Amino acid sequence: MATATKSPAKGAAAKFAADKQWVFLFSDEKGVAKRTKVWGEVRDLLGGKGAGLFDMTRKGVPVPPGFTLSTEVCDEFVKLGNKISPAAWEQALAAVKVVEKQTGKTFGGGKKGIRPLLVSVRSGARESMPGMMETVLNVGLNDTTVTEMAEITKNERFAYDSYRRLVMMFGATVLGIDDEKFDEPMDHLKHERGVKLDTELTTEDLKALVTSFKAVIKSETGKDFPQDVYAQLRECAMAVFRSATGHKAKTYAKQMGWKATLPTAVNVCTMVFGNMGDDCATGVAFTRDPSTGDKVMLGEYLINAQGEDVVAGIRTPQPIAQMAKDMPKAYKQFMAVAGRLEKEYQNMQDVEFTIEQGTLYMLQTRNGKRTARAAIKTAVDMAKEKLITKEEAIKRVTPTDVDFLLHPQFDDEARKAAKKDGRMFANGVNASPGAAVGVLAFDADLAEKWGHEGKAVILLRPETKPDDVHGMVASKGILTARGGATSHAAVVARQFGIPCVCGADELQVDMTARTVTSTKTNITLKEGDWVSLDGAKGEAMVGQIPMVVPKFEEQADLVTLLKWADDVSATNTRKDEAGKPRRGLQVWANADYPKDAERARAFGARGIGLCRTEHMFFEETRLPIVQGMILATDDATRNKALDQLLPFQRNDFIGLFKAMTGLPVIIRLIDPPLHEFLPGMDELVKTVATRQTQSRYGELTADAKKELAEAETMLAAVTQLHEQNPMMGLRGIRLGIMLPGLIQMQVRAIFEAACDAKKEGFEPMPEVMIPLTGHVNELKHVQPVLEKVAKQVMTEKGVKVKYKFGTMIEIPRAAVTADEIAGMAEFFSFGTNDLTQMTYGYSRDDAERGFLLKYVEAGILPSNPFQKLDRDGVGQLVQMAVNKGRATRPALEVGICGEHGGEPSSVAFCYDAGLNYVSCSPFRVPIARLAAAHAALGVGAK
Amino acid sequence: MATATKSPAKGAAAKFAADKQWVFLFSDEKGVAKRTKVWGEVRDLLGGKGAGLFDMTRKGVPVPPGFTLSTEVCDEFVKLGNKISPAAWEQALAAVKVVEKQTGKTFGGGKKGIRPLLVSVRSGARESMPGMMETVLNVGLNDTTVTEMAEITKNERFAYDSYRRLVMMFGATVLGIDDEKFDEPMDHLKHERGVKLDTELTTEDLKALVTSFKAVIKSETGKDFPQDVYAQLRECAMAVFRSATGHKAKTYAKQMGWKATLPTAVNVCTMVFGNMGDDCATGVAFTRDPSTGDKVMLGEYLINAQGEDVVAGIRTPQPIAQMAKDMPKAYKQFMAVAGRLEKEYQNMQDVEFTIEQGTLYMLQTRNGKRTARAAIKTAVDMAKEKLITKEEAIKRVTPTDVDFLLHPQFDDEARKAAKKDGRMFANGVNASPGAAVGVLAFDADLAEKWGHEGKAVILLRPETKPDDVHGMVASKGILTARGGATSHAAVVARQFGIPCVCGADELQVDMTARTVTSTKTNITLKEGDWVSLDGAKGEAMVGQIPMVVPKFEEQADLVTLLKWADDVSATNTRKDEAGKPRRGLQVWANADYPKDAERARAFGARGIGLCRTEHMFFEETRLPIVQGMILATDDATRNKALDQLLPFQRNDFIGLFKAMTGLPVIIRLIDPPLHEFLPGMDELVKTVATRQTQSRYGELTADAKKELAEAETMLAAVTQLHEQNPMMGLRGIRLGIMLPGLIQMQVRAIFEAACDAKKEGFEPMPEVMIPLTGHVNELKHVQPVLEKVAKQVMTEKGVKVKYKFGTMIEIPRAAVTADEIAGMAEFFSFGTNDLTQMTYGYSRDDAERGFLLKYVEAGILPSNPFQKLDRDGVGQLVQMAVNKGRATRPALEVGICGEHGGEPSSVAFCYDAGLNYVSCSPFRVPIARLAAAHAALGVGAK
Repeated sequence: MATATKSPAKGAAAKFAADKQWVFLFSDEKGVAKRTKVWGEVRDLLGGKGAGLFDMTRKGVPVPPGFTLSTEVCDEFVKLGNKISPAAWEQALAAVKVVEKQTGKTFGGGKKGIRPLLVSVRSGARESMPGMMETVLNVGLNDTTVTEMAEITKNERFAYDSYRRLVMMFGATVLGIDDEKFDEPMDHLKHERGVKLDTELTTEDLKALVTSFKAVIKSETGKDFPQDVYAQLRECAMAVFRSATGHKAKTYAKQMGWKATLPTAVNVCTMVFGNMGDDCATGVAFTRDPSTGDKVMLGEYLINAQGEDVVAGIRTPQPIAQMAKDMPKAYKQFMAVAGRLEKEYQNMQDVEFTIEQGTLYMLQTRNGKRTARAAIKTAVDMAKEKLITKEEAIKRVTPTDVDFLLHPQFDDEARKAAKKDGRMFANGVNASPGAAVGVLAFDADLAEKWGHEGKAVILLRPETKPDDVHGMVASKGILTARGGATSHAAVVARQFGIPCVCGADELQVDMTARTVTSTKTNITLKEGDWVSLDGAKGEAMVGQIPMVVPKFEEQADLVTLLKWADDVSATNTRKDEAGKPRRGLQVWANADYPKDAERARAFGARGIGLCRTEHMFFEETRLPIVQGMILATDDATRNKALDQLLPFQRNDFIGLFKAMTGLPVIIRLIDPPLHEFLPGMDELVKTVATRQTQSRYGELTADAKKELAEAETMLAAVTQLHEQNPMMGLRGIRLGIMLPGLIQMQVRAIFEAACDAKKEGFEPMPEVMIPLTGHVNELKHVQPVLEKVAKQVMTEKGVKVKYKFGTMIEIPRAAVTADEIAGMAEFFSFGTNDLTQMTYGYSRDDAERGFLLKYVEAGILPSNPFQKLDRDGVGQLVQMAVNKGRATRPALEVGICGEHGGEPSSVAFCYDAGLNYVSCSPFRVPIARLAAAHAALGVGAK
Repeated sequence: MATATKSPAKGAAAKFAADKQWVFLFSDEKGVAKRTKVWGEVRDLLGGKGAGLFDMTRKGVPVPPGFTLSTEVCDEFVKLGNKISPAAWEQALAAVKVVEKQTGKTFGGGKKGIRPLLVSVRSGARESMPGMMETVLNVGLNDTTVTEMAEITKNERFAYDSYRRLVMMFGATVLGIDDEKFDEPMDHLKHERGVKLDTELTTEDLKALVTSFKAVIKSETGKDFPQDVYAQLRECAMAVFRSATGHKAKTYAKQMGWKATLPTAVNVCTMVFGNMGDDCATGVAFTRDPSTGDKVMLGEYLINAQGEDVVAGIRTPQPIAQMAKDMPKAYKQFMAVAGRLEKEYQNMQDVEFTIEQGTLYMLQTRNGKRTARAAIKTAVDMAKEKLITKEEAIKRVTPTDVDFLLHPQFDDEARKAAKKDGRMFANGVNASPGAAVGVLAFDADLAEKWGHEGKAVILLRPETKPDDVHGMVASKGILTARGGATSHAAVVARQFGIPCVCGADELQVDMTARTVTSTKTNITLKEGDWVSLDGAKGEAMVGQIPMVVPKFEEQADLVTLLKWADDVSATNTRKDEAGKPRRGLQVWANADYPKDAERARAFGARGIGLCRTEHMFFEETRLPIVQGMILATDDATRNKALDQLLPFQRNDFIGLFKAMTGLPVIIRLIDPPLHEFLPGMDELVKTVATRQTQSRYGELTADAKKELAEAETMLAAVTQLHEQNPMMGLRGIRLGIMLPGLIQMQVRAIFEAACDAKKEGFEPMPEVMIPLTGHVNELKHVQPVLEKVAKQVMTEKGVKVKYKFGTMIEIPRAAVTADEIAGMAEFFSFGTNDLTQMTYGYSRDDAERGFLLKYVEAGILPSNPFQKLDRDGVGQLVQMAVNKGRATRPALEVGICGEHGGEPSSVAFCYDAGLNYVSCSPFRVPIARLAAAHAALGVGAK
């Protein structure tokens, strides 16, 4: 076979010019240059795979000749109602002629002594969609060319092996016949011959399979397998285009959050054969370890096999390092080419190659999918290697990657104990890291059903196929009996960050009994049993192993990356509309207890944006005092309770101030309605009704009588405090106005704690936050009194601390009148949970159960506004409040402390809106730090 | 006594010029002209009474000479810490000298053969505050001048009568001694003499009273009654100024909704005497009947009396017409002067006069307070008489006047029946019209207490005093035993629109036993008993008489006035900021039933702005079907229930369309959460717990078992539908999206009804309103389906009707994204109840009970935002929505259908915001029509 030349024959080029160019030879540098300026446009035009083949050809990497039907053909295909445009097809036929010249072979054969031209037909969208698109190999074989092939290669077995593959793939992929229809005659034959592997079948067996497979096609479709090789090519291309808007593609697109499916290109590539004998091989490899990010070539290959054998997981392949021994020359050449590709693309590459009779061909290169850990390590390493900039390294890591790295892992002690107890169930390939605990589901449909019901599911399959994706994404973990680190299950699992153990070949799955047995441990589990999967270690254990959170400080690469991220988000890379540098965005944390504050600080938080004081009231020792305060009918009793609470609160705060010394700590005064501290009304009604009825039968014990009396008293109090809509009721500053002693006690506790901490040498920076303000007069009524308490405490203690008084902006009216409110408040903190609640009129307690999730599902809302800040609605109010607030008080400190503070697209909004900080839960601080840098770099989710 | 000359003596004028002018002679045209340009400024400077005296003097009306200490002296008084500025006092002393010259008399007496100069000292703020300010007569009498007076007038009795009055008024008003301290010696004396009236006392009696009163002053204050006449004058003026910021003034100001009390001027006026003999008299009159508005002079006078005797209600005065017989010359002169004053002031005048020895003096003229009925009648009459313009007539009537006229009155049949049954209790003067039912309270404090507790109270007093005002305004009605139509009780009652019957002299009040007995009917009632008062008829009846609503159509003057008002609000008298005429504002009504719609149309509504369809679901025959629909677990059952509801809804709508033929009818699709149609959860929990407990004792009857089973089923359904915050839950369009069959049924019913009505010759104009939209996608999801149903029905019926689809704007997010929403909606209707609720985060069900009223009381909120639309907050959102909505759809129809639609200041806001209509309850339509005209004229409440 001839190597690829750099340009097509002149005649063909002239023909292309006659119409819009739909088809591009891999070697058509000029044609592609005419239509594209940057690499992104090349990918848009040719798809990822086509662009890779084109680019490798241009770079002189050995690639078999071929051509690409561009993504525009796909768009046109959809427009024409699933038809290939005649002009495009004419260009494709011309391209075949060029490839014939480039290879010296003929499509459809008939050239004496020369192997007929066979081609592969593969999809390739802009973004890879693993398993979603269809591939057909060996197109060009028919009853005639197969004999030519056999004669010329002097390898009849190879020719028929290739032919039976074509017929099967054509039947399954192009004609949509169920795989199992082809498995049946294959299994029957293997059983008859008493063999396990395809390679053990004889030439006659393969010939018989071709006949059987053709018969399947005939009986399933009523049509014969096409002998016309151009008809084969055309039908394959159409199947690819159809699949681009098919059900699976749509599911995947939805899963990825895309608005629509992507158009795909069709790549037609000269077949090279890894299955022509033992000097042939096929393999896939990553230039760095996609699981750990280690700088080591990681891949697998199979001698005498075609590409599909490696990824399908049917035969277990050899590690790539083995190739150095088996095929030293090809190995050396491969390593050189792969290394060069990584350097040129400045990214870890995922490559496919075939060695045909000792000659290396690269069939694909693309940026490799990787785990979160690998994404971070490769980004940091490459920046250190000066292959990429630090900014580029930051861009390459997603918030999800960071999130994933901070996911819980199994407690090592518990894991060891489980092993000792004989609860180790099975070992397999550590295909996708992470810990997962769930109940076994034996098929994808059930996994999806249970998953949607909120169950934690581990999907168990002999091996996974594209059909299983809907169940995989609904599962917490995936366990398979067959397939390696590059099998379908492994690739998909890594992509979605789902822990996966695959190729645990000791497992025997009984789909009828719905049981799975490990032949090694002799444990049998049934569907619904609990299993714990460790994707990083490749272990499956029986039962629920407890998990722990990995230590952030020990993840050196992440720590490094986030330091870079902080630099970026502080230095205002972006400009606003007026051309001024945007405000830097810090990340603070919500923390109620000193231990949370310490964790937050370790995670890089630059302040506490929200300490909820009332959480402390729920503690067992305090709740009775709190209830006493609420039920008090006179000031003396109430004040006594408040006096008892004061030292508790002071102690809570002092720990916070010490942990956050030198950094601001925003403490919110009591927020929830008082009834939250009392028993539920329904429960009390029930108790009273039951006991009262019993008493009519004279059956009440002394204890029961006491219970009844207490319940009646409590019910009266609860009824008094009962509200139809407590979220819009007596809470926040309203409560502070009705019970001024309560918030005065809190402010006293805050300042006593701050003064004490300062005396001990710490630097406390308290900021007192008044919740739920709706009218500036509320602040005017409350704030001066509280400031007086603060000053009084500092006088008493003889200590001065820096402090601020400010408010939450969580009521729409507060946002609309922020100019007035900023006259009193020294800082604003957006409570976007409540602000979203009020702006939408969605009760947070009810909406998700009632209608909200259905709204999202039906596309009425683009996303759940409690998760992702609604830029169009809530965002307008936030922006209005920032602008109005700063108009009154230019130095106003503005942040956000709702759940949105840790959600990347919301962080991006906060950056754009000019906030000073976002505050989120400690565990989300690292994610928010990255998201802030992304926002500053102008990338990231919207 | 000399008549007033037009300018002060030259020397005095020169003295005034030396400093800022604080004091103005009634005759000082130049001085006043220097300081004022328009009448309003004169009133500001001199107060209402002072301005009137000044203006009457200028017009040549006979007014006793005098001068005014301006309101600026009052402001200065407050600034100086309750001191009269020395410069002002110096000017006052100079003014006394001028008056001495004008009258030829001397203040302090001593001029042989000439009566000493006596003066009255009266307050006069810009707005009259009846009874709030203090008056002292006869200032200038002392032990010396009283003897001069006796000698010169040859009327010792008169002199000492005047002197005892001065001592008492000075003691009570200036020194703040309790009235009763002076009543005691008076009552004692009368009892001793066996007389009832003051006039029956002898000269010696009066001398003795002077001595007794002086002793009271000495014993109460430790000081003597001042013999220095200038000290008298000074202390009187100071008392007036003190009272301007005193407790009573503050109460009144608050009642009137003013921000602060008004500064008052002090008027010092030469005393003329109605009590010098039978050729003397004093009286008050209105140039038209202040109760009915009839064009007839209405007043009362007393021969040989001082002014206070008439208004205090101590002696029952004669009607003014009687004067024609008693004093024909003075009467003729008075009628001419009064008629001229009305013409000059273009308004009904409230005048005070005194006839001293046959000579008429006018002591006061001001625009007369009047009842609502009189306000409307005089305004319309004067416009017809061309005395004022129609616009001026509209301005003179307040929304409260209109409201009052539509207040319920007693059902005539019920009233007659009560009379027949012997339940007529007492008759008195019809002092302030209107019907009131309440329980008797015998003092103002109790009336206030009960009123604040929400009880309907009738205040019963022998006679009322300024001290009683706090109890009067808290009462539904007022009943007194003494005093006429111009008594304190009558004036205050009319001012505040409180029905009042006064001067029912058959009543004997026993304040110890807390009972009242009618000597005529021999009925005795005790405190707390129910009474019904008819203020228009002057009747008090025992018990609670049922009330009916007066017929709007029969109130010809109001109908006329509102027609003029409609012309004004339609013709855009005002311009907007860009100088373009503002949009006209129509008044529509909220009506659920045909009878409401008919009433609304009769009241002048130009459309139905809100028909709440769900109200129809609560009717007894329908509720079980609605519950069946809610509890349905399958579509078939649910659809069956919907099919049953359809004809009910269609019948409801057809009546509406007929009643409103040719006018738009906005029908809102179902809004409330479903649980509102089911029993309450607490009740169910109680039933289940009780019955379950009973069943453990084996005591359940078959019925009880059935009840338990039903309650359990219902509880399960209610629990399923239970929401923490139903106001922000599954309701409105959300419900429509979850139960599409329900709203499709409603739309079908609407269009079937519309088509049927059209076939009968009516012109239905349905507008379908979708409630609670928060995101445009909700409309995109729902509206096209509903429009399809509409078209389908019209096709089925072969009829076309004009229609619109639109939405409520009641969620803040809808306001913020109104530009998007207007892409779908053809009209907006602001649901300002919900919009206020969400914008403030105040639960309508809870806030008023919880904290809202306290907020208003403490001044944290200027007013209850559910009553008066909050311009600063909610108003901003409304304006934003109007602007954004019209930017997308210039012809967008925009209105408001919340409770605010009938509240005048909110109507003014709607006009300013450019709305097309306000929709309110039918009874408030007339009020809103007037308020709309006021807005167009640029007057009215903000």
